[in-house]
Order: sequence, then structure tokens, then C-alpha cells
Amino acid sequence: MNELSQQLRVDSVRAAAAAGSGHPTSSMSAADLMAVLFSNYLRYDFDAPENKANDHLVFSKGHASPLLYSLYKAAGAIDDAELLSFREFGSRMQGHPTPELPWVDVATGSLGQGLPISVGIALAASRLENSGLRVWVLCGDSELAEGSMWEAFEHAGYAKLKNLIAVVDVNRLGQRGPTMHEWDTSSLAARAAACGWDVQEIDGHDLEAIDAAYAAALESDKPAAIFARTKKGSGVAAVEDKDGFHGKPLDDPEAAIEELGGIREVSVEVAKPGEAKPFEVERAAVERPSYESGESVATRGAYGDALAWLGSIDEQVVALDGEVGNSTYAERFAAKHPDRFFEMYIAEQQMIASAVGLQTRGWKPFASSFGAFLSRAYDFVRMGAISAADLKLCGSHVGVSIGPDGPSQMALEDIASLRAVFGSVVLYPSDPNQTVALLDAMREHHGISYLRTTREKTPVIYGPEQSFEIGGSEVVRSSGDDAITLIAAGITLHESLKAADALAEKGITARVIDLYSVKPVDAETVLAAANETGALITVEDHWAEGGIGETVAGVLAEAGASTRLTRLAVTERPGSGPPADLLAAAGIDAAHIIAAAERAL
Amino acid sequence: MNELSQQLRVDSVRAAAAAGSGHPTSSMSAADLMAVLFSNYLRYDFDAPENKANDHLVFSKGHASPLLYSLYKAAGAIDDAELLSFREFGSRMQGHPTPELPWVDVATGSLGQGLPISVGIALAASRLENSGLRVWVLCGDSELAEGSMWEAFEHAGYAKLKNLIAVVDVNRLGQRGPTMHEWDTSSLAARAAACGWDVQEIDGHDLEAIDAAYAAALESDKPAAIFARTKKGSGVAAVEDKDGFHGKPLDDPEAAIEELGGIREVSVEVAKPGEAKPFEVERAAVERPSYESGESVATRGAYGDALAWLGSIDEQVVALDGEVGNSTYAERFAAKHPDRFFEMYIAEQQMIASAVGLQTRGWKPFASSFGAFLSRAYDFVRMGAISAADLKLCGSHVGVSIGPDGPSQMALEDIASLRAVFGSVVLYPSDPNQTVALLDAMREHHGISYLRTTREKTPVIYGPEQSFEIGGSEVVRSSGDDAITLIAAGITLHESLKAADALAEKGITARVIDLYSVKPVDAETVLAAANETGALITVEDHWAEGGIGETVAGVLAEAGASTRLTRLAVTERPGSGPPADLLAAAGIDAAHIIAAAERAL
Repeated sequence: MNELSQQLRVDSVRAAAAAGSGHPTSSMSAADLMAVLFSNYLRYDFDAPENKANDHLVFSKGHASPLLYSLYKAAGAIDDAELLSFREFGSRMQGHPTPELPWVDVATGSLGQGLPISVGIALAASRLENSGLRVWVLCGDSELAEGSMWEAFEHAGYAKLKNLIAVVDVNRLGQRGPTMHEWDTSSLAARAAACGWDVQEIDGHDLEAIDAAYAAALESDKPAAIFARTKKGSGVAAVEDKDGFHGKPLDDPEAAIEELGGIREVSVEVAKPGEAKPFEVERAAVERPSYESGESVATRGAYGDALAWLGSIDEQVVALDGEVGNSTYAERFAAKHPDRFFEMYIAEQQMIASAVGLQTRGWKPFASSFGAFLSRAYDFVRMGAISAADLKLCGSHVGVSIGPDGPSQMALEDIASLRAVFGSVVLYPSDPNQTVALLDAMREHHGISYLRTTREKTPVIYGPEQSFEIGGSEVVRSSGDDAITLIAAGITLHESLKAADALAEKGITARVIDLYSVKPVDAETVLAAANETGALITVEDHWAEGGIGETVAGVLAEAGASTRLTRLAVTERPGSGPPADLLAAAGIDAAHIIAAAERAL
Repeated sequence: MNELSQQLRVDSVRAAAAAGSGHPTSSMSAADLMAVLFSNYLRYDFDAPENKANDHLVFSKGHASPLLYSLYKAAGAIDDAELLSFREFGSRMQGHPTPELPWVDVATGSLGQGLPISVGIALAASRLENSGLRVWVLCGDSELAEGSMWEAFEHAGYAKLKNLIAVVDVNRLGQRGPTMHEWDTSSLAARAAACGWDVQEIDGHDLEAIDAAYAAALESDKPAAIFARTKKGSGVAAVEDKDGFHGKPLDDPEAAIEELGGIREVSVEVAKPGEAKPFEVERAAVERPSYESGESVATRGAYGDALAWLGSIDEQVVALDGEVGNSTYAERFAAKHPDRFFEMYIAEQQMIASAVGLQTRGWKPFASSFGAFLSRAYDFVRMGAISAADLKLCGSHVGVSIGPDGPSQMALEDIASLRAVFGSVVLYPSDPNQTVALLDAMREHHGISYLRTTREKTPVIYGPEQSFEIGGSEVVRSSGDDAITLIAAGITLHESLKAADALAEKGITARVIDLYSVKPVDAETVLAAANETGALITVEDHWAEGGIGETVAGVLAEAGASTRLTRLAVTERPGSGPPADLLAAAGIDAAHIIAAAERAL
């Protein structure tokens, strides 16, 4: 085993030397920990990464990618040439691990995410699948400063995830100097223990101690954390336990390789798991929800109804909420499908991370909170896109139209921030039947999608059989010879319809477009309106930046359309008050739309 | 004191009843805790909120605003009529507290922020100002699920902030049911103790116990946390300790008021603090940095140089970094001004929260990390805007041009997300001298501003005396009769200059605009280019959504300009590799700009 450890160090040094960058010293500190894991504990079939019975191994300290890739080589999954393509353009051996590699579940490299995501994997395996697999996570000590790690410790302890083992490589040195706690693992261990974890503190270079710790961890009926005191750069005197060698190749890799005993050709036989066991998912019949013309229903309510329905027609659908399920109406799913509902409490990072973890096992997670509070987990969504994760998000209580609760609860930047996530879909329904259709489209779509729902009740304007698709839009009103076009979605669509009525009385015919798919956008319909009407007005309950207005502006400018665009959006800091007052104060209600239309013509 | 407690409950009930919404039960649980604080411990001059010797009181559980406003009334700061204007349009009594009230330091209402921000206030008072003031924070138990709270516990313990007292109102019930730990305060207390806090667990309705706990907390040489077991809705049998009464007025407020002993006119004499003591700030002379033509300097390096300089010319400047100061180059400030540098370790939420706290005391905080990792603290920046906070942010390592580290480290959404922050300024320099000038402009600007810096070295293109301003742009190249305009900033400006050279050789004269102020944008210069040249091309090392291209599109569409815009931006998930390869793969290098120009003409 010592030979394997040394090979992992040598190969980490070689990979970083070949790349001219990377993190060999952060790899060397954890080499012994991972050598013992691969030799004696991990159950993984590298020839069949799709085997559902495989253990999971997540490198939460993603910068130790040279170690991970060296492990893959030792396990026979990659060859030496591929290892040495580390960080080359086009190589799968990226600077930080991504699921482009079939043995990597999720991208890491933004510290503090691997453990929370692993909680989600462990929840899937234990709560949903009754699987005996284990989730192993290699954590760094620096990343324990991230609060998200403590959300994970708390939730795993609460959920008694005995299939989760966190191995913390406490190498005392961060990027630019000592960590807050250095080798004082006692306070970290005490905190983890208080969260309900089984904790051990060991010498992370003592192979026997490591082995004993893993054995003990597997006996625990709690999640297990092993705080292993290690030396960064261990094995090479020039860098061992020395500051100033983070994230760079060794100055003299040849000498280091010699000091480590030279290049080896050790291979490790990783134990294979058994067959994945079948498991059952409870079901509860729910009718497809539908709403009648004449009703007024908040789209957030329709979200809850639709989610409960989707849970019945698709056994892979699971739902998570951040302790606001009676506001987002995720509680309607929970009532029908309690086994597939995850209450994540007020820990939005852990909520999104759990969703990312769940989808690695094929579940289709829908995660909801107030749109404003999803901003708490923005980095997790960003990284989810790098993981090519299948995430369905819902943000409720958007815009000034929530009224009395005030600006802290208003999502006014969610369209902008979530449009700027790679490959994302951003949907913003105006009607409950439409919400049902769009949520079903999200279920079928693989990728990151976001549904923006409204707190206030709005009238039903579409029939239950009407279809809506990702990338679509709906011309809600058109005379065939329209003077102007109003483009909106959500609550401002209803203001636009009121404005169109009033304009019609003044002899101005307005086309009204429901731009419910903000991304991807239906450019064709927008451009047709630009060509066929004299002016365009966008109206949105969102800041002016990055929302519907700019989306439409982009379409027009790329086409060289000369139709003038007026963008109505929120441009002043709102306060509390009745929704109608706030819509008026923001200049996005019917009266302001009418005035803007008259100015534009 | 009991009379005061009951009045606080009555007034909370009355305020919510008047508003028809709000959180009376969450207020009632903490009434005793706050009554004792105001009667015996708080030192605050409500007539002089600007007195620097005042204690601070932060309601981290901002939804208990009825209690806070009832306290203000009892202290004589507001009258009953204003209290009853709770949540009315235009009233200062917003649904959640904001600094529109002179006694409120920061907006709360996004849970998990008040304690981290208070850590920043406590750091300012203790580390910078040698003040004897105390920072009192009322926390909820639900919000202890937020990792950001544990970043705060950890940092406060590490920094030994004995001037910080967290009062946790453990009322057992969250928005939709029991919290994770209900009244089991032991695990929470154990975790806080492990973080280096003095901890107490008390009955939060026992006035003597509360008083004794505060007295003990003030004797501690550590930050003190009081975990007080309370009953939500305490004092009114219909709601006391009952689920289902979160965030709504009482069904029968009149009966509740009677049960509580009726309306009172108790006033509390809050002790006033002494005079604020003068304090000294260390200085270290630094020359204004300047760079010569012919040099190549990364703008992140210029950030470090400029920040160190600003620290010398402005004693209010402080700096924070998230354990990457040797990458952002904030370490250059730390070397010159160690007393005003705050190492926040890898805890970006606590970093931004600390900055928000520091600026409440008049300090000018500059906070830096990789741009990608600022996304971790997006909700804190969002709330900072509601607080009208003065925050200067710097994100380094932006875009695919960072190269080998791969996508997890690349900020590609930072322009979009930070433009969508109310009142923000987004700057993106291309040159080190320009970086110095823009950072100085950020110092003078009050509000949230963001500087985007580049990892790679780029040539000096401006002189050290050239001026740049927020809202400006620079025409770097123009023949007076240009066929096309290239608009860029940062690394793609240099690619645009290379492209312009190559186009010139082909007889195509290109105007090149450095759009270094992305928000606010210099619309005049953009529109002049649209009018005077045949086509526009934007180029940015950022996703296509919400960045430079959409900003320009917005300008063009609002003006009804028919000049066609081509937007070059990152549209595929990048990997690792040399910067030049990644710029080429993203289609944003000189070769792609040349091709786009030729296609456009």
C-alpha cells in the first residue's frame, strides 16, 4: 500500500509538471488516505460506472485532481499518457474534475460543494433506493470555512446518513498561508459531533490508523467524519509542510520523483460492488390539474398542484423546499408523495446541492424557495451547469408585486442571474394552466431550468389543453393590424392586457405577446412584431438589467431592427405596500404602459 | 419590565392587525428578551443615532419587525401612529427593517445575514476603533440552518469578538412547522462553544434568567451566545407554541390584546452611551502606482497596487479577501496596511457580510476573491443594495482566459449578476493605469461597485495621467471614417485591437471602443458609433446573457438604431487549456473578431 501511496504522489508531481500548473502538494497530503480507500474499502467497477451499486467518491477538494487522476490510472481506468495530458486543451483531465469523466459525478473546484452534494447522493441511496452503497468524500480543511459545509454536516446528522463518510485532509495550509485552525482538529471534530456525526481524529499518513478509521466508520450508525492531520506536499522535503507551494508544479519534479522512490507501475484492484437492488417508489394518484376561465389562481399555487401531479405520472420526480413549502406550495407535493419530498430547512445551498446529488442517481429534482433566496445558492447553480446537472428550480414571490413583505423578499434579479447560467432555461408563466404545461416541459427537459412564479392571484387566460413549450411565446392579442406591441410575462402580462383594453378604447390596437420562455426566447415572434408594429414595449417586474427588456433588445439589435423599444422595469428601490401601489410606483402597471404606448407612437 | 414585555406583545399584535400581515407570533417569542435588553443593557441614544459610541442592535430575524418597531415606540423614537402605519405604502415601517430608519444599520429579512454582518460591525469596533460598544444580535432558530450563520460563529470565535452578543430566540417553530432541533439547544450550543463562544441556554421567558445571562455575557472574554427557549406567540393561548400561525396577523387581535392585559403606555429609558473615543489608524506611504508603455501587467496586479495606494491616501479604506490574496493581489494591501486588512478565509458570505458591517461604521471596504466565487455571496450583495451599503467588490480570474484551471474557476456570469443589483456600478478595465484610476473612482463612489480583473498580463495602453470615470468609455482607435466598430473591455479589448490592426491591413478601418464602464454605460459613444459606422461587434469573455453585448443591445434598441449588432461571447461550456486556445474555442479572439467583421460588412 505504501508503494501505491508513493506512486500517487509521483504521478501527481508528474501530471502537474507536464501541465506546468496544478496542485501537486494538495494531492500529496491525501495520497495515503486515498491509497487505503482504493485498496481496501471502495467498491467501484471502473468498467461499469453506470452500475447503480457502485460507491460514490467525490473530491470536494477538487483541486486535488492530480491525485484523483493518478488513482484512476492506478485503478486501470486511464493510461499514463492520458494522465500526462493534464490540463491540455481538449483533454478530459481538466484542472478540476468534471463529469466529462464517467467516474466523476459532479464538477468540483468551487470549495465547499462536494460534501453538500454528497449529502444529496447519500439521501438518494438511503432514503429512496434502500441501497447499501457508500458515499466517500475527500474534503479539504480550508473549505471547512464555507458555511455550506456546515449545512451539510447538519443535514447529514439530522438525516442520520450512515452511508456518508467524509475524509478531511487537514494539511494545515491554505492557498496563501495557514488555515484558521491548522492542525487543531478538535474544534472541527467537536462541531461535527454536535451535528450528530461519528468523528475520529487521526494521523493521515499512518496507513494502519487510516485503515482502522475506515473500518470504524463503516461500523457507525451515523455519518462518519475522519479528520486526518496531514502534511501538504508530504514525501518531498523541499515542499513538505511548507508555505508558498500551493497550486503550482514542483520546482524540481525530477528530484522529487527520485526522493519518492521513482516512477512505479503499481496497480490497485478496486473491489467491485454487487448488483444494484430493485427498490419501490410510492405512488399517489393525482389528476392533472386544470383551471377554468373565470378563476383567479396564483401561478405558485399551480406550481404546487402541477408538482404533485408530476410526482404521480413520473416516479423519478422528487421535490425539495427550503422551509417555505406553504408559500411556494411545494407542500402539495409533500402531501401526496411524502417519501419523495425533502425538507431542507432554511439552507438553500444544501437544498440545491442535494438536488445536484439526487440527479446524479437519475432522480428529477424540483427545488423551490422564494426566488430571492435562490440567490443564496447561485454558486451551486453555476457549478451545476458545469456538472451538466438536471435541475428544475422554482422561485416564488418574485418582483415588487409581492407587496407588504418588502424588498428583502422580492426576487428582482432572478431572470438576469439565471439566464446567465450556461444552458439554462428560464420560464415565467402568467396563468395556472400554462404553469402546468411548462412544469411538465421542465420535467422532460434535461438541464437547468427555472420557473418564476407569482405570489398574487391572476386570472386564468388559457385553457387546460393549450400547449406551451420551452422556447415558445404566445400572441395573446392581435388585430392583424396592430399599432404597437406589448411584451410581458407573469403579472405584467395581465397589466399589459388591461392596458391593451384601454388603448383599444382610444383607438390604438396593441398586440400583446406573452414571452413566457425568456430563455430560450422566441426571436421570430419578437421580430415579426418589430416588423409589423410601430413600436415595442417590454414590461417586467424585475430590474431593467438582464431581464425581458434586454432579451428583446438583443433580438432586435442582432437583426438590425429599427423599431424603437421602450423598456418598463423596476428602476427604484421598492418598499412595502399593497401590490397595486408598488406596481404603480415602479411604473409597470397598466396606467404606465398606456402612457408609454402613447409616448412611443 | 413585565409590563414592557406585555406592551411589546400588544403593540406587535396591533401593528400586524393594522397591516393585515406581518409576523406577530415571531415577535412575541422574543419580547421578554428584548424588554430586558432595552431596560438594563442596551446603550443607545435614539436622538443621536449617529453617535459612534452607540451600541448596535441588529435583528437578524428581520421578520420580527413588529417587535423592533414596538421597541422603538417604547423608547420614544417613534409614535404610536407611525407604528400602526406598518407595511403601508410610503411608511418607514416596512415589512422587514431597512436603514430607511436611522436606528437600523442594515436591511434584514433574508435570514442568516444579521449575525454575519454583525461580525463585521464588531470587527470594526474592536479591531479598528478600540471602541467599547457592544453589538447585540437577535437571531432566530430557523436561520441557524443557514451555513452563513456558522461562518459567523467561526469567524467571531476566531477573532475573539467579545463585544458581540447573539441572542437566539429558539421558539421551536419555523414557517411551516417545527425546526430541525426544536428546543434541543444543546447541539447548537455545543457547536457555538466549539467555535470559541461563551454559551448559555436559558428559558427565554424568565426575566431574571435573561438578566443574569446578559450580565454573564458581558463578563465573557469571548463572543457570547444565549440560546433562549421561547414560545412562538407567547402570551396568547390561541397561538402560543402552536403551528400554523407564522407570518400572519392574529385572527382575533382584540381578544389577544385583552388577554395580554390591554394597551399600555410604558416607556423605557434606554441608557445612553458615553462619547466616542478617538482612535488611530496606521499609515504606510505608497506612491500612486503607474505603469509604462511597453510593460505587460495583469489588471489584478494593478488592483493590488492601487488598493495599497488607496489605503495610504484614505484612512477609511479597509480590505478583505477570501484566502486568495496572492491571486487577487489584495496581499499587497495587507503588506502595507496589516491593521486594516481582514483575512476572511474561504467564506465569501462572511467576507461580504463583514464588508457590509464595516461600512455601517463609515469604513470603505474593498472585498476581493475570484469573480466566480463572489457568486457564493450573491444574496449578501443583493441585500447590501437594500441596505444602501457602500461596498467595493473586486472579482479576479474572470472568463475563459484564465486557462488551465478550468470552468469552475472562471467567472462568466459576474457582469450579468452584478449589473442586476440595484444601483450597482460594474467596471472592467483593460489596462493597469486605468485600473488605478477606476479603483480610485470606486473609492469616491458611495454604493455597490464591482471591478472585474483579468488573470493574464496585458499590454499597457493608457498613460498614468489619463482619466477614466464611472459611466465613461474610451475610443481607443478611430480613423474618423470607420467602417465598423468593435466594442470590448478587458482581455477582449486587446483582441479587438489586434483585430483592428489586421482589418486595417485589409483596408477595413475599425473603431475600437473600450467600454470599461459596463454599468452605467456611455450610451452616447455607443450611439455615435452606431450612427457613424456600418456595423457593431461586441466581444466579451462572459456568457452572452446580461453582459456587454446585451448592454449595447439595450442602448441600440431604446434609440431605435438600425445598425446591426453582432455579439461575440462565450456560448459553449469551456474546459481547461492555454488561454489563447480557450479564447479561440470561445470565438472571442482576434481571428474570430476579424471574421465577424468581414461577415458583418
